[in-house]
Amino acid sequence: MKRELGAQAGPAARGRRPAHGEPVVDRALSLLAVFDEHRRWLTLGELSRLSGIPTSSALRLASRLVAWGALERAEDGRYCVGLRLLEVASLAPRGHGLRQVALPYMTDLASVTRQHVLLGVRDGLRATLVERLSGHAATPVAYRIGGHVPLHSTGIGWVLLAFAPQDVQEELLSRPVNREPDNRPIAPAALRRALATVRRERLAIFRRRDAEPLVSVAAPICGAGDEVVAAVSVLLPERAAQPRRLALAVQTAAQGISRELGATPTPV
Amino acid sequence: MKRELGAQAGPAARGRRPAHGEPVVDRALSLLAVFDEHRRWLTLGELSRLSGIPTSSALRLASRLVAWGALERAEDGRYCVGLRLLEVASLAPRGHGLRQVALPYMTDLASVTRQHVLLGVRDGLRATLVERLSGHAATPVAYRIGGHVPLHSTGIGWVLLAFAPQDVQEELLSRPVNREPDNRPIAPAALRRALATVRRERLAIFRRRDAEPLVSVAAPICGAGDEVVAAVSVLLPERAAQPRRLALAVQTAAQGISRELGATPTPV
Repeated sequence: MKRELGAQAGPAARGRRPAHGEPVVDRALSLLAVFDEHRRWLTLGELSRLSGIPTSSALRLASRLVAWGALERAEDGRYCVGLRLLEVASLAPRGHGLRQVALPYMTDLASVTRQHVLLGVRDGLRATLVERLSGHAATPVAYRIGGHVPLHSTGIGWVLLAFAPQDVQEELLSRPVNREPDNRPIAPAALRRALATVRRERLAIFRRRDAEPLVSVAAPICGAGDEVVAAVSVLLPERAAQPRRLALAVQTAAQGISRELGATPTPV
Repeated sequence: MKRELGAQAGPAARGRRPAHGEPVVDRALSLLAVFDEHRRWLTLGELSRLSGIPTSSALRLASRLVAWGALERAEDGRYCVGLRLLEVASLAPRGHGLRQVALPYMTDLASVTRQHVLLGVRDGLRATLVERLSGHAATPVAYRIGGHVPLHSTGIGWVLLAFAPQDVQEELLSRPVNREPDNRPIAPAALRRALATVRRERLAIFRRRDAEPLVSVAAPICGAGDEVVAAVSVLLPERAAQPRRLALAVQTAAQGISRELGATPTPV
């Protein structure tokens, strides 16, 4: 996906009209897109190779990004994502705006459960995590802020999918989808039934068949128009889980966040 | 500051060499720079006016940013900062990387104190907040993630300034600086003494003379090279504060975070 973006903006596709300007913007953005969780520090050569932009152009573009603060450069010459980007990104209404309202409620859930508490929003056919609180003792998981989780195979995803517009649901249900982490296909009919339950109960209880089985208990968060705008979940080892007991705590937190966002209270 | 950036990248300064490419990148970035805490949603006209970029160019550039996800556009046509930027920004080593290590310790501090717990790093002559945890009952404050706080007038700032390179300290001490929020000038000699105490005690106790006086208790966080890379603080009403008692808790949390970052333990 990231390689494609890089290639799209690369010299072959765009070289014929350098004066038009916007392709340059695409190329600068494609430099940002090559960083990921496993590649937080990149040399100029790596930036060039991963983005498909020739070294000389990559250097010029990276210099502009460094001057602005979107990238930072270490003494050894390697580049990383800069703090200035965090400043701007923190203004995203669906990110930190929501997060600021949700955080006190999430802190309460975390201090009671001492496990992971996650906050996510739907972004097309996947969910983006905008917050994660984790106790010291919580089971290590790979979920990270800004990262994606599948709609069909997480508690947060089930909530966001169950309350997504019909066309989004149909689009996802029309594709072959596999369960994580064991990669077994999910029958569309089974997923439909699960989503109907989520809508009825305003609650998702999702079990992950990991080496150490995990349970996610998730509930919908509504915005001022009473539409579902986010989901909050607690993720914990199955051996420690009493999902039904946790459900009320998660739903109460979701209700509190929804109320502060301007939603009409829903009877739980 | 943001207006200046806009003007810098504006058409007057750059119009003569549109084919060179990079000015376009500067202009695209200047569109991102006009958003702030009080302007999270902007019309095309506002984007154009605030950035100093003509409407037609602003529309073209904004469209590229929307296509990539750096901006999002609402049904009413207004723009806001997009989730994709949060995804990339979350890879900033000095932002979320640090935050991920610090968060469990901050959660502990927050659940004990039920007040604000802040995490900041130095960014030139100011500090950027990379995390804030706040209890329901915490005194409302304006500090926000991604926002800036002055080095000379906050607990976090004092710690970061006290351990900053000599030239950074001299540059700040050579300027007239005012205390917040009452705007009274700070005598450089007094600030020097305060910073020496912070270095000796590895602790800052800073009092804000607000209508409701606040105390900030801050301690330094060290990285793998034992250099100070961040500061953590608890901010609470003076009436509730027992700064010396809190100090140990804050220093212990800072120590834990430093240890995980690879620093050599320092005797408190």
